[in-house]
Amino acid sequence: METATFADLRWDERGLIPAVVQDATTGQVLMVAWMNADALRLTLTTGETHFWSRSRAELWHKGATSGNTQAVTRVYVDCDGDTLLVQVQPAGPACHTGATSCFFRRL
Amino acid sequence: METATFADLRWDERGLIPAVVQDATTGQVLMVAWMNADALRLTLTTGETHFWSRSRAELWHKGATSGNTQAVTRVYVDCDGDTLLVQVQPAGPACHTGATSCFFRRL
Repeated sequence: METATFADLRWDERGLIPAVVQDATTGQVLMVAWMNADALRLTLTTGETHFWSRSRAELWHKGATSGNTQAVTRVYVDCDGDTLLVQVQPAGPACHTGATSCFFRRL
Repeated sequence: METATFADLRWDERGLIPAVVQDATTGQVLMVAWMNADALRLTLTTGETHFWSRSRAELWHKGATSGNTQAVTRVYVDCDGDTLLVQVQPAGPACHTGATSCFFRRL
């Protein structure tokens, strides 16, 4: 397995990178959210997912109010460094609707 | 299973939406790319993934040159309509490096 560092990451013009969150056990894709550098550092240092809320313009510790935290198992970077894949053990549903995954609607 | 339509989608200010591509059989997350409305329509009508290349500013039929097409099994929309999850049967590696998945580096 190759490794990547912070220096390999390509943040967008807002300083953000999209993070795909996947259940490390089931493989289910749970959600996609955005991280800035602070959110990624907090995710790595605390071992729980943190994101940047674009709508509220603030750091967001997933599960801080709901209790539905996500314990980080592994973080991957894609080939061009502009997307993260975060594998987690979720403590509860990922979606604010109560669904296990935010992807509960078929197109 | 609930359903969503084109009208439920929230395109960004560039008219794009991120699409997470997942192997429908193994659950492996293969890549994340962007679609505009034309790319999504082509994906749904042809049954093979199409994306919008931001760097080349053109429609991109995945596998058109490499042969590594992705046959679409299911498309999901997330709760707030701003991300797609596309489950596929890949004909070959997703990554231009030859890796099965673009997420082959650990952070």
